[in-house]
Amino acid sequence: MRELIAYLSAEQPRINATLERETAGLNPLVQPVVAHVLEAGGKRLRPLLTLLTARALGYAGDDVYPLACSVELLHSATLLHDDIIDDADLRRGTPAAHTMFGNTKTVLAGDALLALANAIVARYGNPRLTACISEAIVETVTGEIAEIAYLRSTGHPQQTYIDIIKGKTAYLIQASCRLGALIAGADKTQEEAAALFGMHLGIAFQIVDDALDFAPSAKDIGKPVAGDLREGKLTPPLLMYLENLTGDAHKSFVQKFETGMFTEAEVLAVAAAIREQGLDARTRTLAEDYLATARTALNALPDCAERTVLAQTMEYVRSRSH
Amino acid sequence: MRELIAYLSAEQPRINATLERETAGLNPLVQPVVAHVLEAGGKRLRPLLTLLTARALGYAGDDVYPLACSVELLHSATLLHDDIIDDADLRRGTPAAHTMFGNTKTVLAGDALLALANAIVARYGNPRLTACISEAIVETVTGEIAEIAYLRSTGHPQQTYIDIIKGKTAYLIQASCRLGALIAGADKTQEEAAALFGMHLGIAFQIVDDALDFAPSAKDIGKPVAGDLREGKLTPPLLMYLENLTGDAHKSFVQKFETGMFTEAEVLAVAAAIREQGLDARTRTLAEDYLATARTALNALPDCAERTVLAQTMEYVRSRSH
Repeated sequence: MRELIAYLSAEQPRINATLERETAGLNPLVQPVVAHVLEAGGKRLRPLLTLLTARALGYAGDDVYPLACSVELLHSATLLHDDIIDDADLRRGTPAAHTMFGNTKTVLAGDALLALANAIVARYGNPRLTACISEAIVETVTGEIAEIAYLRSTGHPQQTYIDIIKGKTAYLIQASCRLGALIAGADKTQEEAAALFGMHLGIAFQIVDDALDFAPSAKDIGKPVAGDLREGKLTPPLLMYLENLTGDAHKSFVQKFETGMFTEAEVLAVAAAIREQGLDARTRTLAEDYLATARTALNALPDCAERTVLAQTMEYVRSRSH
Repeated sequence: MRELIAYLSAEQPRINATLERETAGLNPLVQPVVAHVLEAGGKRLRPLLTLLTARALGYAGDDVYPLACSVELLHSATLLHDDIIDDADLRRGTPAAHTMFGNTKTVLAGDALLALANAIVARYGNPRLTACISEAIVETVTGEIAEIAYLRSTGHPQQTYIDIIKGKTAYLIQASCRLGALIAGADKTQEEAAALFGMHLGIAFQIVDDALDFAPSAKDIGKPVAGDLREGKLTPPLLMYLENLTGDAHKSFVQKFETGMFTEAEVLAVAAAIREQGLDARTRTLAEDYLATARTALNALPDCAERTVLAQTMEYVRSRSH
């Protein structure tokens, strides 16, 4: 992943500077919430994907940076509203915004970031960019709602899980890639290839995330393990664990999962059993099919340095440990 | 207001049918929240303004209905998020969504309506429509944030109040009119006249709303009087009341307003004093300057039946009693 790491080091400062400039005009009331969610904020994978796709398809303009950042701002908006919804007390190992700033400022900061992301894309005056971001917003919210609708349910098939993570995670990663293709003026074949890559990378990303929930690395000390079990989300490790249970053990798990009645000791015991049975590792293998499709899609893009880096984002998704 | 009433009766069914059709695809989880906020929902003033402006400028197409409804959906989204923010237990005399459905579904339903409104406008593929709605979203959120930032403040001038209500109310009413002008292909002069009309009608609308908060009609039984005093919003009736106080009474009011320590009896006493001193009526007169500007702006539109109805919306705003 040498090229990816080099590209990240080179581009992160400019991405962060753009995020800072774009959010500088927001009201001081929500600035601390916005700074908090952006500082907590990971690797800037989404803006990087927009940049890489645009560059791979021959676009050299500097005005791609705000476009790339619009997706990160939208992602941050969903993190803030998720915080309220999940009532999660820790997010990426740092306290959730709503515990630090309260519901009001957290809702408003999320609304402000969503509005800003949308306004940035509208600035380009390009209906195809607008259609892309507005579809991504709809799909992301739809995915979040579907996830809540299936909380504490054990009766739905794995395909429902895939539909949920497509919505809540993959559509936005797809949009990151599609926006890059669109600003580059890509033809329909290349645009769809970039979108297909993003969609499948995004699905794989979330599957690995759901494996990591049961096998946190040393860097995640302080983050509660098995958040998905506590919240009642039937992710693949839990579905596999449930499928291994029989008789009373199965019945008891279903009953406790559906009512949210697990004790802390039971949660930790399930997490340990999932690791012992290797179900977190088996979950990671589920991501392989999606990564294979992503790889095939990538072949439709010109063979260039940026395509090499895009291929390495798959490696990053596959191997990440936190 | 005979023409306005006739126009309303003729168009409301079609507006409501469009709202139903556009929201029918939303997840069943949020449908009850959406139905609740749309059913509570007033006169459909905003869609009506889009329709009237488009028709007055010569646009006969039926595809104006979804565009008109986008603003109502956006307005409903802000009502839902406001519910959480204000912790208001009654909204238009019916229970607030969050008390019936909880914060999670209320936040998500608001997000879904915002996303839908945005997606509807994006469908038209017209960058000027997109720019208009995205600006309206930004300004509305900015206004709501500013309102929260000035809660329990008594030190800010009346212009700050005007800036806040421009943001939280008037920009969206301006957008209703501007969208109608844009879809009609109006020239810049007519577009700006329609926008100017909407902005000033919107400011007047909110000023009258803030007067009504202290003088509810019989139809508002069950709605707590003086909500703005309870929440710490220094609206014109309260600013005028405060300006009439001197010495210890002034000091005591400021101290209680800023700390939110009024008893129920004190709230009712202030509301009664405001009515006795005629400050709700004086607040209504503040709206007159804005209505006068709105009327002047309207002259730039063609003299037609729809312009007569638009003029009557000013009469409706001026005289409404709930």
